[in-house]
Amino acid sequence: MVGALEQSDLGQTDATGRTLAEVFEEFGGNPAQIDKAVRTEGQVRAYLELHVEQGGILESEELRIGIVEGIVGIRYLDVRIVGRANHAGTTPMELSKDALVGASRFIVAVDESIRTDNFCRVGTVGKVDVAPNARNVVPGAVSLTLGLRDMDEEKMDRTLEHLRRLALGITDQSGVEFQIEDGERMEAARSDEKVMEAIGKAADRIRLSHRRMPSGAGHDAQMMARIARMGMIFVPSAGGISHSDKEFTSPEDCANGANVLLESILEIDES
Amino acid sequence: MVGALEQSDLGQTDATGRTLAEVFEEFGGNPAQIDKAVRTEGQVRAYLELHVEQGGILESEELRIGIVEGIVGIRYLDVRIVGRANHAGTTPMELSKDALVGASRFIVAVDESIRTDNFCRVGTVGKVDVAPNARNVVPGAVSLTLGLRDMDEEKMDRTLEHLRRLALGITDQSGVEFQIEDGERMEAARSDEKVMEAIGKAADRIRLSHRRMPSGAGHDAQMMARIARMGMIFVPSAGGISHSDKEFTSPEDCANGANVLLESILEIDES
Repeated sequence: MVGALEQSDLGQTDATGRTLAEVFEEFGGNPAQIDKAVRTEGQVRAYLELHVEQGGILESEELRIGIVEGIVGIRYLDVRIVGRANHAGTTPMELSKDALVGASRFIVAVDESIRTDNFCRVGTVGKVDVAPNARNVVPGAVSLTLGLRDMDEEKMDRTLEHLRRLALGITDQSGVEFQIEDGERMEAARSDEKVMEAIGKAADRIRLSHRRMPSGAGHDAQMMARIARMGMIFVPSAGGISHSDKEFTSPEDCANGANVLLESILEIDES
Repeated sequence: MVGALEQSDLGQTDATGRTLAEVFEEFGGNPAQIDKAVRTEGQVRAYLELHVEQGGILESEELRIGIVEGIVGIRYLDVRIVGRANHAGTTPMELSKDALVGASRFIVAVDESIRTDNFCRVGTVGKVDVAPNARNVVPGAVSLTLGLRDMDEEKMDRTLEHLRRLALGITDQSGVEFQIEDGERMEAARSDEKVMEAIGKAADRIRLSHRRMPSGAGHDAQMMARIARMGMIFVPSAGGISHSDKEFTSPEDCANGANVLLESILEIDES
């Protein structure tokens, strides 16, 4: 719809070997006509999206409505830590180059750095693979994926620079080597100021408490921001849980969200 | 041969579903007659084993012969660290319970403790599995295997107690829980003092430098120690590498080892 999908993307295959075009057809789409779905700037007056908040902030602060300031950018880093695989029993501690100990030092240092106010909002190592991953072998290599998220690209740059220095420090201390490569990157998408004001007015009108907050998860709004003024409305979700059968938002909060959406549309329509 | 294999063990299956008895037969053995292979204490005068040293100590100290004092005991621990899986983007750092950060703190603390002189000789986390292991999810659980090795069982007890306290400290600090279970355990096997003296005399006689040292790896001698006086002779291996096509021991060192073995047998035979 924003023109980001190229005909050439349609030939890409997933893990089962099916192309995007095939899956698209199964789903009822017509891959030959993707160009006809494209809308350009000016054709859409504003884009509004209602969603459950997936972080538990509204719930813990007992607020009813979140006005999304934007969707954070993401930088994924692929980090490979190389030591030397060796027999865990015969290798004296002082001769071993344990990639997993190096990786662990890095993971702890990332966590401690991100918790300070100097760096990006969140940073998580979600995926770790150890080789050879056998109980009696000193790990020779570890691959991990680190994801950094923030609205502010400069803060991400600063964080990245800091983490590279941390890695060098671990290499100096232990001899394990770090190879840090930039992986996928998604730019932050900011909400439109007027749209945020409209949502705030709408919430005030129906007497619902609210606050502004970034969205740490990606949403359709992120893409729509390329062609239209964008805004999002969050309602509380118990424990911040989503995409799970444990997800729960009360009927009252669902109705609140829908009412704020309606009032916001009217507000924008009249402005 | 030491009577440790029971008929009931023969029914156990490997990852391919074959029983130990089946594999044993393919290998040319007769599973019905394992009892006939058993030797008892007194039937074997002494057991000697010649092997490459797998830790690189002889090479780095430029010594020709290692006299093995015994084979270290091993304690495997299965450690499960439980946090709370959550969306990596939406969960504020202060609300997240990251099992991988907890596991990493533990791995670093294990390494730092074992490097001091108070605890067992080596301790290695060789195997780590993260769940769900996805780049955009805060890790909810980590399973890891820790192996501790030393000749001294009391030192192992002391180490274990220390590591349990470390885990409790991490729980207090971060809220992630540790479940520590005792896994496989192999007792240390000590070499016979007279056999070690015989190896020392043999090496002196053919003018080869030597030192006593524990073996960090398991060997047949470990089992044979149950029924006979046991001793082992180590020769240097380049970089301590073994079970690899990079393993190398010079022809001279091979001959040295064989000569010390011969002289040791003569020494023990005459004693």
